[in-house]
Order: sequence, then structure tokens, then C-alpha cells
Amino acid sequence: MRVSELARRAGVPLSAVKYYQREGLLPAGVRTAPNQVAYGEAHVQRVRLIRALLETGGLSIAATKDVITALDADAAPLAETFRVAQHAMSARRTQESAPSEAARARVEALAASHGWCVTSDNPGVEAAARALDGLRAIGFDAPDAYLDAYAAAAAAAAAADLRALSGRGGRDAVAELMVVGTVLGDPLFAGLRRLAQQDATHDLFPTPETERTQP
Amino acid sequence: MRVSELARRAGVPLSAVKYYQREGLLPAGVRTAPNQVAYGEAHVQRVRLIRALLETGGLSIAATKDVITALDADAAPLAETFRVAQHAMSARRTQESAPSEAARARVEALAASHGWCVTSDNPGVEAAARALDGLRAIGFDAPDAYLDAYAAAAAAAAAADLRALSGRGGRDAVAELMVVGTVLGDPLFAGLRRLAQQDATHDLFPTPETERTQP
Repeated sequence: MRVSELARRAGVPLSAVKYYQREGLLPAGVRTAPNQVAYGEAHVQRVRLIRALLETGGLSIAATKDVITALDADAAPLAETFRVAQHAMSARRTQESAPSEAARARVEALAASHGWCVTSDNPGVEAAARALDGLRAIGFDAPDAYLDAYAAAAAAAAAADLRALSGRGGRDAVAELMVVGTVLGDPLFAGLRRLAQQDATHDLFPTPETERTQP
Repeated sequence: MRVSELARRAGVPLSAVKYYQREGLLPAGVRTAPNQVAYGEAHVQRVRLIRALLETGGLSIAATKDVITALDADAAPLAETFRVAQHAMSARRTQESAPSEAARARVEALAASHGWCVTSDNPGVEAAARALDGLRAIGFDAPDAYLDAYAAAAAAAAAADLRALSGRGGRDAVAELMVVGTVLGDPLFAGLRRLAQQDATHDLFPTPETERTQP
């Protein structure tokens, strides 16, 4: 198929496909004539994947490139692909300062108390520690019960992620879900948390005048 | 105190404080002499809050301004402050396209099946629906069990948020935690999910060579 058909099939504007090409995110098509290049089903899949990472996941072009390179390295162990995906989300905000040592230690202690076997270079340590620093800046020193509730919720989501992975067949399909699931699970959870928060605070702030989705 | 002392006390570079001032995020100090302006404790708190929203929360300047304006509107009901905070995180990625109607409907049905009382303009619907579209783009049509696990985890986090709020005294302290907790709960959860994922996939990809935090 031509590039216009590729864009249509993937459901993205032609300008987006050309942008992905310019940024080196899309593998070349097959040249069938001096002025014509043909693309296949794999390109359609790849365009959708790039869009999901860039738009919904909010990854930078550079992070998206890292993730895609890891996915394409067929010989690479899945663990390496997974590590790259975990780091990609964290590379998003390079202007951030390092979290405090106290917050870092608290996150590591929390992981240990939940029996998690994790490496200290896991980018989740920094991300969670930075959030604790931010909460502390407004005078909220998160109590253990608060962190335990979040850790238990995170464990439940991770278990669901793992069950989803084990239901996929083939190395490529597993790797793809591992990467995209890591990236998109964040906005999925964040969105659902907004909804659950509105429900939880419903008694505090009744909103009788607005339309509701009733159970 | 002077601006240099303000920066030191808040633990941010002086250039950052000046940047916040230029962007209109920081209320003016009290002019004590033609060339001298004094800042108080409230300014220290405010600088810390701005930094947490911008850096850790990843909010834009415009979204941060909205949140701060809502916080400062003492007369505004807490529900309005909360609504602004919920929307601020969503305003972050304006280049995103709208999610599919099918994904939207699925999220609303999920909320209903969990008995959540939510309005359809809750930005969580769009965020979660967009993530579902992204997962679908790689051929992963999230099964009900997967979404239920995420919804249950979100409800547990929201309940912890509510308990934290009820432990705070005073309208300002409650409003501040409501806003910052909404924004920073996302990276806190995302970080912990990275850790839980590493633990959950540990049996799939043993990493004997790297250092681990043992329980």
C-alpha cells in the first residue's frame, strides 16, 4: 500500500506518518518504482504503536525511539526490552531534580515491606520518591497506611499486567504488550483514579445539578 | 526575608523563583524600601507547591496557574477546587486526539459496574478511554478482568486519598492536599507499579547479576 493508504489504515493523519518517518521511527517501505514505496501490514501496526506511545503515553521522540529499538532487537532478552520500557517513561521529564535520600529510602523500605524483589536502579524508586518529596513540601508526610494502600493497589495492577502477558502468544506480541502496557497502564490507572476520587468525594461535595452516570 | 533567602528556604534555585515570579505564579512580596521586597512563610510554602506541581506533577505553567488560582479563591467551594485540579492534569497533553466512542462507553460502563457515581465530563473518562484505544491499537482488547483489577486498585487509592484528606485541619490545608494529592498520586502510583511489575515479572526474567533490595 502507499503512504496515504498506510495513514488511513492506521487512523492517523498523513502528516503524522511523514513526521514519524522524518524522525526515523518508521522502517522504510519497499521501493517498487523510482517514485513509489510500498508499505505492509507491519507498518500499519507500527504506526499505531508509535502513536500510542507518543500521544497517549506522552513519551518523547527519543524515548519512543529507544522503546522501538528494543522491540526490534529480536535477539534481545525480554527482560532487556522490559527494562527499556520501564526507563522510557521516566526519561520523560529530564528537568526534574533528584529526590531526597530520605524519600528514596522510604520507597525502598516500602518495597521491602511488601516483599518485592526489585533492583535499586528501577526508575520507580525515583518517581515515587519525588512524589513523596512533593507531598512533603505541602506538609503532608504520607503515613504508612497511605503508602501501603498505594503499594497494594500497585501490586494488584502489576498482577493484572502479568496475567495479560501470559495470555499472549509469540515473543513479539508479548514484548509489544509489555512495552505498551507499561506505558499506557499509567494513564489508564490515572483516569480510573479520577473517577474513583469523584465517587469517593461525592458525599463531601454533592453535585446534584450535573448529569451523572448512575450504577 | 529577601528573595535569595526565600529560594534557599524553599530549596529551589534562585533562578526558579524568579521564573515563577515572571510567570505570575507567585504573589508579590511586601515592598519595604524602594529596592527591597520582603517575603514571608506563605511564599516559602507557595514556592514548594509550585515546584511540586511543575516538576513532579509535570503540569504546564498554564495548568499550574489554574490550580493556584483555584486554591486562592477562598470563597470557592472545595468541590470547585477539586474539579480544577482534576482537569489540570488532563490539560497537559493538548495534542491528543479524542478517544473512540466505544472506549468511552466501555469506561463509563466500568465505572457503573463498580457503582461509582461520576459525571460524564470527568476528565478520567477521556484519559482511560485513550489508553484503551492505545492498547487496542496493538491488538490488546483489555478483558473485563483486567479492567476490573485496575478499577479496584483505583478505588483503593482513592479511598486512601480520602482518608488522608479527612486527617487534615482547615480549609486551606485540605484544598492544598486535594490538589497536590490528585496531581502527585499519579507519579507515586506509577513509580510503585514499576517496582511491583519488576517483582511480578521476576520469575519470568531472573536478574541474578544485579543488586536487589531484599525483603
